[in-house]
Amino acid sequence: MQHSLHAVLETSLYVRDVDLALRFYEDVLGLRKMDVFPDGRGAALQVGKGPSVLLLFRAEITRRGGTFPPHGTAGDGHAAFRIEADEIPYWRQRLKDHGVAIEKELVFDSNPPSIYFRDPDGNSLEFAVSSIWPFAK
Amino acid sequence: MQHSLHAVLETSLYVRDVDLALRFYEDVLGLRKMDVFPDGRGAALQVGKGPSVLLLFRAEITRRGGTFPPHGTAGDGHAAFRIEADEIPYWRQRLKDHGVAIEKELVFDSNPPSIYFRDPDGNSLEFAVSSIWPFAK
Repeated sequence: MQHSLHAVLETSLYVRDVDLALRFYEDVLGLRKMDVFPDGRGAALQVGKGPSVLLLFRAEITRRGGTFPPHGTAGDGHAAFRIEADEIPYWRQRLKDHGVAIEKELVFDSNPPSIYFRDPDGNSLEFAVSSIWPFAK
Repeated sequence: MQHSLHAVLETSLYVRDVDLALRFYEDVLGLRKMDVFPDGRGAALQVGKGPSVLLLFRAEITRRGGTFPPHGTAGDGHAAFRIEADEIPYWRQRLKDHGVAIEKELVFDSNPPSIYFRDPDGNSLEFAVSSIWPFAK
């Protein structure tokens, strides 16, 4: 029998200051903090209702390994968060209210625009509707 | 009215050779290729049935920016894919059949083990069940 992976469960971004990053992801993006890891290693946030986790890690710690296999990157990562078309005005306003600049808006085919902005570490974030991708059922 | 982000839509990993990485993610992990970007920039894969996208990027290209805001990392990233508990034997065997070493198995609380392995670029990948995280409804 053939099985398929069901979804990405954990997405990682690397940050310098976990508290600063958490403030951004909780206050601006409204994500729910699930866990803060010992020794400043990072934190985990729930995204939406489904099983979707954003991990924030300090690469200087995670590169050492230990309990977990070592990992860690330098530079600006990229992740996109799923929104619905009618939520675009809300998220534009919410970024503005928090002083977060919209770096770019891009339109793919006839979809509503994707909105690009940065977290405090410079990671490139995006709000996008799922119809920008040709998902098969 | 307050809105919430619905899920992570796009997760990014950075690779040196897009074709080599695609072979791994298609053949070993069974993901469905949705798009290959021009100029060796990267590729997009569908994960599962839901709207979940894994992006593979070559940082040397994406760092230049252009149409898209610049991003790109060096070092080993981390992502986890959601599986069900009864699929663990299948995925262990599938990694073995493709000569992919299991780097570690970790048990969180009373959950079935999470399985850690590497892609050809050294990114740290994980198969995990969603119950390892305390999701709120």
